[in-house]
Amino acid sequence: MGNSLKNVQQAMKAFSAARDWDQFHDPKNLAEALSIEAGETLELFLWKTKEQIEKDLQNPEFKKELSDELADVLHYLVLLADKTGIDLEKASAEKLKEASRRYPVEKSRGNATKYTKLT
Amino acid sequence: MGNSLKNVQQAMKAFSAARDWDQFHDPKNLAEALSIEAGETLELFLWKTKEQIEKDLQNPEFKKELSDELADVLHYLVLLADKTGIDLEKASAEKLKEASRRYPVEKSRGNATKYTKLT
Amino acid sequence: MGNSLKNVQQAMKAFSAARDWDQFHDPKNLAEALSIEAGETLELFLWKTKEQIEKDLQNPEFKKELSDELADVLHYLVLLADKTGIDLEKASAEKLKEASRRYPVEKSRGNATKYTKLT
Amino acid sequence: MGNSLKNVQQAMKAFSAARDWDQFHDPKNLAEALSIEAGETLELFLWKTKEQIEKDLQNPEFKKELSDELADVLHYLVLLADKTGIDLEKASAEKLKEASRRYPVEKSRGNATKYTKLT
Repeated sequence: MGNSLKNVQQAMKAFSAARDWDQFHDPKNLAEALSIEAGETLELFLWKTKEQIEKDLQNPEFKKELSDELADVLHYLVLLADKTGIDLEKASAEKLKEASRRYPVEKSRGNATKYTKLT
Repeated sequence: MGNSLKNVQQAMKAFSAARDWDQFHDPKNLAEALSIEAGETLELFLWKTKEQIEKDLQNPEFKKELSDELADVLHYLVLLADKTGIDLEKASAEKLKEASRRYPVEKSRGNATKYTKLT
Repeated sequence: MGNSLKNVQQAMKAFSAARDWDQFHDPKNLAEALSIEAGETLELFLWKTKEQIEKDLQNPEFKKELSDELADVLHYLVLLADKTGIDLEKASAEKLKEASRRYPVEKSRGNATKYTKLT
Repeated sequence: MGNSLKNVQQAMKAFSAARDWDQFHDPKNLAEALSIEAGETLELFLWKTKEQIEKDLQNPEFKKELSDELADVLHYLVLLADKTGIDLEKASAEKLKEASRRYPVEKSRGNATKYTKLT
């Protein structure tokens, strides 16, 4: 219940404070960690076809590995947002509003061309 | 105000569905996008000292760029979780429980050594 | 015409020295830059099918973008190797020898399973 | 002797051909692998201060890990260049020429500001 992003953020801050890890968590280190964990997430799909990925997603062991990686990404994301004073919900709402303007439905339907390249 | 992670996820799914972008959003592509956006986040800190980063964080323009990048990471994270059937809140709670066991407070205080290397 | 890796390394060192950029090039920053450039390389393929990529590779503008990204990756790679005292040719030869042992031809033919998972 | 980049490329192609791994090595997969390996390289520096990194670089075990990661990056780089028909030496020379123009010595000395932001 309540706000899950803020709940995760509070849990991570408490976890980190208990271990005195705050000293390592400057924005640059956290951005490195975020990028590294996103790379580990990608590694779970490397060399695989869509069919193999569909099959792997039926495998509880693979699912657990993926779940752990996504949690790691989320954890560094909320810590980085906290350290830099960014409200993730607000950031998301603003970005989505801008994206709606940049990628008008009628021009972008079924088209992944980056908005800078849309005529 | 409700569950923010699920709210963001619903907003992203609606945004994507309106543009018929669902066809591009297989897990592998989304994991690529997640990793690319995390790299763009890291780029905002590249070559900078802690002092410069502190100063940049007082700059509204920099803050907006960072806010947008964190939103992008969040958006691909919730889309990837949705496509692979992973509940991010549950994933976070499980991972945090395991991390608490792997990094006992007394052994890891002030020490960033990876748990695999803790004696 | 001589050793191309060492030539590229020398050219990058001279370029950097002329701009007094050596001060920014500690190993951690260079590893960040390497990772960011690799992410930008990946972005050139994002959302695209094999067919679209084949087509893009016929497009001189796309080819130039890709060429520039690969050059960036190479440049940070040789600078990082230089700063950390690693001989890339030797590193490559050693790694390839180990990989040959870890992935015996008869067991790994047509199989991308990571060697740790090969029975 | 000879051209080390082309030598590494030939060695990797032979290694891959012997295992029939060519089928996995489309440009997108190789770009993913490149990005993942660059992330693993970065992980070797995560949470560490300059002083710790200096110390680690005296440690043969750390040095070997780093050497292996740099070799992995190099290997996927030469394979990706091969698959996309890009000559890395030429790409490097062109990029360096452009960078010399974009970052004139007198304006960029001691200044890491991205050229787009140089006045």
